[in-house]
Amino acid sequence: MQLPVILVNFKTYPEGRGKRGILLAKAAENVSSEYSVNIAVAPQLLDTINIAQNVEIPVFSQHIDTKEPGSATGHIDAYTLREFGVSGTLLNHSERQINLRTIEEAISIAKDAKLKTLVCAGTIPMSQAVSILKPWAVAMEPPELIGGDVSVTTRPNIVKLAVEAVTNGNPDTLPFIGAGVKKADHVDAAIQLGAKGVLLASGVVKASDPEFVMTEMAKILKTVK
Amino acid sequence: MQLPVILVNFKTYPEGRGKRGILLAKAAENVSSEYSVNIAVAPQLLDTINIAQNVEIPVFSQHIDTKEPGSATGHIDAYTLREFGVSGTLLNHSERQINLRTIEEAISIAKDAKLKTLVCAGTIPMSQAVSILKPWAVAMEPPELIGGDVSVTTRPNIVKLAVEAVTNGNPDTLPFIGAGVKKADHVDAAIQLGAKGVLLASGVVKASDPEFVMTEMAKILKTVK
Amino acid sequence: MQLPVILVNFKTYPEGRGKRGILLAKAAENVSSEYSVNIAVAPQLLDTINIAQNVEIPVFSQHIDTKEPGSATGHIDAYTLREFGVSGTLLNHSERQINLRTIEEAISIAKDAKLKTLVCAGTIPMSQAVSILKPWAVAMEPPELIGGDVSVTTRPNIVKLAVEAVTNGNPDTLPFIGAGVKKADHVDAAIQLGAKGVLLASGVVKASDPEFVMTEMAKILKTVK
Amino acid sequence: MQLPVILVNFKTYPEGRGKRGILLAKAAENVSSEYSVNIAVAPQLLDTINIAQNVEIPVFSQHIDTKEPGSATGHIDAYTLREFGVSGTLLNHSERQINLRTIEEAISIAKDAKLKTLVCAGTIPMSQAVSILKPWAVAMEPPELIGGDVSVTTRPNIVKLAVEAVTNGNPDTLPFIGAGVKKADHVDAAIQLGAKGVLLASGVVKASDPEFVMTEMAKILKTVK
Repeated sequence: MQLPVILVNFKTYPEGRGKRGILLAKAAENVSSEYSVNIAVAPQLLDTINIAQNVEIPVFSQHIDTKEPGSATGHIDAYTLREFGVSGTLLNHSERQINLRTIEEAISIAKDAKLKTLVCAGTIPMSQAVSILKPWAVAMEPPELIGGDVSVTTRPNIVKLAVEAVTNGNPDTLPFIGAGVKKADHVDAAIQLGAKGVLLASGVVKASDPEFVMTEMAKILKTVK
Repeated sequence: MQLPVILVNFKTYPEGRGKRGILLAKAAENVSSEYSVNIAVAPQLLDTINIAQNVEIPVFSQHIDTKEPGSATGHIDAYTLREFGVSGTLLNHSERQINLRTIEEAISIAKDAKLKTLVCAGTIPMSQAVSILKPWAVAMEPPELIGGDVSVTTRPNIVKLAVEAVTNGNPDTLPFIGAGVKKADHVDAAIQLGAKGVLLASGVVKASDPEFVMTEMAKILKTVK
Repeated sequence: MQLPVILVNFKTYPEGRGKRGILLAKAAENVSSEYSVNIAVAPQLLDTINIAQNVEIPVFSQHIDTKEPGSATGHIDAYTLREFGVSGTLLNHSERQINLRTIEEAISIAKDAKLKTLVCAGTIPMSQAVSILKPWAVAMEPPELIGGDVSVTTRPNIVKLAVEAVTNGNPDTLPFIGAGVKKADHVDAAIQLGAKGVLLASGVVKASDPEFVMTEMAKILKTVK
Repeated sequence: MQLPVILVNFKTYPEGRGKRGILLAKAAENVSSEYSVNIAVAPQLLDTINIAQNVEIPVFSQHIDTKEPGSATGHIDAYTLREFGVSGTLLNHSERQINLRTIEEAISIAKDAKLKTLVCAGTIPMSQAVSILKPWAVAMEPPELIGGDVSVTTRPNIVKLAVEAVTNGNPDTLPFIGAGVKKADHVDAAIQLGAKGVLLASGVVKASDPEFVMTEMAKILKTVK
């Protein structure tokens, strides 16, 4: 996957649900294609397969479970994701936290199912800690900023330390940054500070014109490279 | 929904995953249509929407979450199910148990999203207890028989008491029965003992010829009515 | 245990912790003895044994776990409670909710360990549902009133329906009421409306003079009988 | 606390419950005192305070919760432990796993309550990951060996790598080792391989003569130093 990456988390926002979710994913695809910038989407869990069948850009699951396929009613099975060409999965989002051992098991299952893993962490030390488990990427999101109007990039020192922490944990794990990242210049700042990707949600999903917002971000990224 | 109902839970069996899940749901649809018997399916969570778009028979989700739509990354949103014509949801399966209050909240959300609710219970008293919360149906499944080779119907007294317990809890809630139900005569026995539906899984999903198994069950049900 | 019962939940309030917890339990014992009224205490989990060794009034645990004794590091073992003469346990408090099946298992373990069970429920239907599992008592506490300044007894119809619901579920289960119950006349109202006990917390534990508050309640109860 | 440390986890074994728990802790105290070797105990949660009041050796809690004191019925409050002179707490034992963020929060609360923290981890990478969060100690215990008859020290390379991993994570965090450690020569091997402490349970608690077992271990440790 070409870097840097803009990863849009649809959460369970009604604006990104069902048919509106497909439109949103297609908007991301348009922008990605027009500006040759890598935009990935993490649709609502129930929409994941549907959207993976409708777009060419990378699709991530919002979560996977670790129980062995079979007697696991109501669990999210990594191998199904692979069958439909899903690229990866978020893990341990602050809204869907899991045990430390489960994180390690999920990374292992995801590797077996050929899925990339992006593990979320709320602090600098947690970012380094999960990076040691060798996921594809770690996204540092201070929980107090998630969903709010203050971008994590207004605290450049935190972003730099997070990037360093992830790289210290494992030099091959990509440092992502998130929380309050809503505008093109936030994305720009994150990349300038060393992040290889940004994790965003409401800034795009709840925008009156998500394609416009993503376009602005893509133009900035184009310049960055 | 016409009674009685055969509800096939695909769990996360590889045999019911992805494309094989669609084939299995279509087989259920064929049998349902040919014998005018009501067969419903509960596909793997990730396949739910896909299958709901591919068959006309009732589709159930294996689980729903109760957090309000929005900041709920990795949760199962009831309203998405409704958008794609999903008929209902399982709740509190022994492999995906939830708090008592969450059961009550989920029933309330499901009603709002126009989804039927089938709540699982492992004992006679639990069956009556959850029936009081007025779900659409309660499925009594002794946990020690789930996935095994002994059908709950070999204990007719338990089935009768479960049917009674559900009806005592709420006369409008449908009594279902499950655990080890794999053959046509198990289905027959369950209905003769007063159940309005059966919940099955491996007996169909892992059968070498699932359509044949469902056909045998449908023929029996045809006679019952 | 003589009825009605005032059960004081110490939660983890600093005012009821450690040595202050022992003083609080002794104050309850004084009032109970002087007015021949039944006051029971549910101290902080870690203080439970200590307090059970220091007072003669009934002591309840705030929770028990259900894993078999042995490989259960960090779990609350019912049999230890019995060894020190603890009388019973709360279950499913809104601040410590458990799965429905776990409630049933905990009631069964508590019976085996000769502990009374008081199961908490947040609504009228939940109160009836848990009563069917035949605990010693069910305490209905509307979650929106817990810890607040509005007593559940200001809604007499809710109290009456809760009492009825518990009795319908199982005539031998005692109906308790709680949430916002802080003053003697709240206790009076609850008992007049049919409750056999009240569950209270901050109204006593955080009072500037807990013994005075309990004395006022005891005087009222004395009159009630 | 003088190194190395033998930390005996009583789990919820009936042999270490209530009065037998006090006797066991006193046996540990005798051995510790006679051989000037550091033996610490982690009694059953409910017995923690009682035992802390009866012995002079370090006592650890088996778990703490992280909810702020107050509205936390049924939770384990770190500040109560401190009031009774408890020395520290286990965290994330494989039988009581917690979310990664909860581990970080618990370490922070424990520091505030002046409790040492020993975090359990099941693999080499997890050991390094939790060490980054700067607990007092990390105990590596391969889950497949816990409670079994094969000592982790029969795999010297794993012990060495675990010690290295903990030290790499944070040079000030003490590396402990556990799982199947039941005999004096297991303890010897662990210390020779670089561990600063061992975590044991059934080998002592379920021994016909726990004081004898601990004495053998103490004699070995005496020689080691």
